[in-house]
Amino acid sequence: MSSTSTPGLESYRRAAIIGGGVIGVSWAALFLARGLDVVISDPRPDIEDLVRTGLDGIAPTLAELGLPTDGLADGLSFEADLATAVAGVDVVQENGPERLDLKQRIWRTVEQAAPAHALLTTSTSSIPATAIAEGMAQPERLIVGHPFNPPHLVPLVEVVPGERTSPEVVEQARAFYTALGKQPQVLRKEIPGFVANRLQAALFRECVHLVSQGVVTEQELDEVVTASIGLRWAVAGPFRTFHLGGGPGGLPQFIEHLGRGMEAGLWPALGSPSFDDTTVALLTEEAREAFGEGEDDIDRLAAARDRAQIALMRALGETPQAA
Amino acid sequence: MSSTSTPGLESYRRAAIIGGGVIGVSWAALFLARGLDVVISDPRPDIEDLVRTGLDGIAPTLAELGLPTDGLADGLSFEADLATAVAGVDVVQENGPERLDLKQRIWRTVEQAAPAHALLTTSTSSIPATAIAEGMAQPERLIVGHPFNPPHLVPLVEVVPGERTSPEVVEQARAFYTALGKQPQVLRKEIPGFVANRLQAALFRECVHLVSQGVVTEQELDEVVTASIGLRWAVAGPFRTFHLGGGPGGLPQFIEHLGRGMEAGLWPALGSPSFDDTTVALLTEEAREAFGEGEDDIDRLAAARDRAQIALMRALGETPQAA
Repeated sequence: MSSTSTPGLESYRRAAIIGGGVIGVSWAALFLARGLDVVISDPRPDIEDLVRTGLDGIAPTLAELGLPTDGLADGLSFEADLATAVAGVDVVQENGPERLDLKQRIWRTVEQAAPAHALLTTSTSSIPATAIAEGMAQPERLIVGHPFNPPHLVPLVEVVPGERTSPEVVEQARAFYTALGKQPQVLRKEIPGFVANRLQAALFRECVHLVSQGVVTEQELDEVVTASIGLRWAVAGPFRTFHLGGGPGGLPQFIEHLGRGMEAGLWPALGSPSFDDTTVALLTEEAREAFGEGEDDIDRLAAARDRAQIALMRALGETPQAA
Repeated sequence: MSSTSTPGLESYRRAAIIGGGVIGVSWAALFLARGLDVVISDPRPDIEDLVRTGLDGIAPTLAELGLPTDGLADGLSFEADLATAVAGVDVVQENGPERLDLKQRIWRTVEQAAPAHALLTTSTSSIPATAIAEGMAQPERLIVGHPFNPPHLVPLVEVVPGERTSPEVVEQARAFYTALGKQPQVLRKEIPGFVANRLQAALFRECVHLVSQGVVTEQELDEVVTASIGLRWAVAGPFRTFHLGGGPGGLPQFIEHLGRGMEAGLWPALGSPSFDDTTVALLTEEAREAFGEGEDDIDRLAAARDRAQIALMRALGETPQAA
């Protein structure tokens, strides 16, 4: 597994994954399946067990995706010392805690110890590259590569340059994630939460409102979504959907006929719930009823979801090509 | 096509479709394919041409769904007079203009002229059954059956009883739409916009914000959605997604670790755009760039979307069973 011929990845032989949590392990699994050697840098004493157990859990999904999994962990190693870990790598994907001070410290070390050609990316979901790079000597090298969980399965990677990130690094990041089989989307501006999590937050706020108002249960709301907007948005995003639903005049006609009604009637009526004790108790109780409560239930439901996800990606012709 | 053996539809021989617009034609196509005779009641002089052209456009999609389309229009007839149209039918699906006074007038006529056993449903997306039924002698008979456009393709039908709708009618409506191959969801309370359109409005508001702020273009935003949350929500709704993404503690753990951050950080930061001239001009321009501007483009894109939709439903095992 240590040599690869995946187009676009010829110059990537070795990757450092900083932080071996859920996101880090998922990236590691994908990098390994794509033929890169991977060194994990994480100070936890039990990190090797955690990562190997995580890889075992992910391997069947990689196989379903058509990626090679024999000897998946052959190229895997561990190095707690950050500077040692990133020496000699071609790409660094950092998945540390979402704390600015920690990330700034990590990246000051990494930029000094990593080779000058290495692509430097952070998985952060909430901290702009501009802020993280403030303490760096070469802030133009750092870029956000924010995956949608789990990175080995969901196609999207939000590529978010900081104010000082160089255009070359933007293109390098886009090409790297594309070669990995992902669908990178470069954002034009930094904004808190980036795009996907903001959209998710907007929809989820109304979900919490509708359940807390007793209009539907969690399970019923989920079924509404999978039977309508989810199914739609898997094949056509919101703008395309409304463009095609607006009649012969497309989106402008939609805005005139329905969008203005939405602005006047629905937007002001949307809920503003909060996670107070009553709401959390209700959400917890309904989650128990809908999904069970054991860790086994979660593993089983997650596996079923991932199988359905892959069937859907296959139907849409979106499974990644095997190396 | 005038006799049917579709399980659950044995007692439905004849349907009245009131209003032959886009929604009415789509319902008519589905009812006909399921073996019902359909009478369209619409005062427009050119209604017959409109409906027949519409049916021709829908037939290939029905065939893709595995439904019979030979002689699809054999059971189709037209009757502008409302009372005459609904005499002798087993179900009425009303798709008139979204105006309370018009709907009240329609339903006062229909309840007097339709047989006592007929199921009485309105496709309204915005007017509660309670309000429409105010002028009816038997308000317990009326129920909302709100489809997600287009009804012949998207599974969801929101079944929304009014305050006085009888439990028997709720069950009758649920069984009817299920037998048609749809996925009805009965709401527990009337609320403006029901569930799917409220969720859609919540997400779309943030879409308009992000595009108007220049974070992404319409096309880029659509690609973010199809590559992440759309793909996810086609197989697992928002609550299930967060339950499975929350770690071993499920949704309660998600709320503690990420939900509270969402409430504190993202919910207050979501945008409040409006369809002012600048925004509409930008949305129009970007729609033109992304989707073209002719009606032909829309037909072509809609057909491609519907094919993808069906491929996806097949992958999920959700295409309706043929009669």
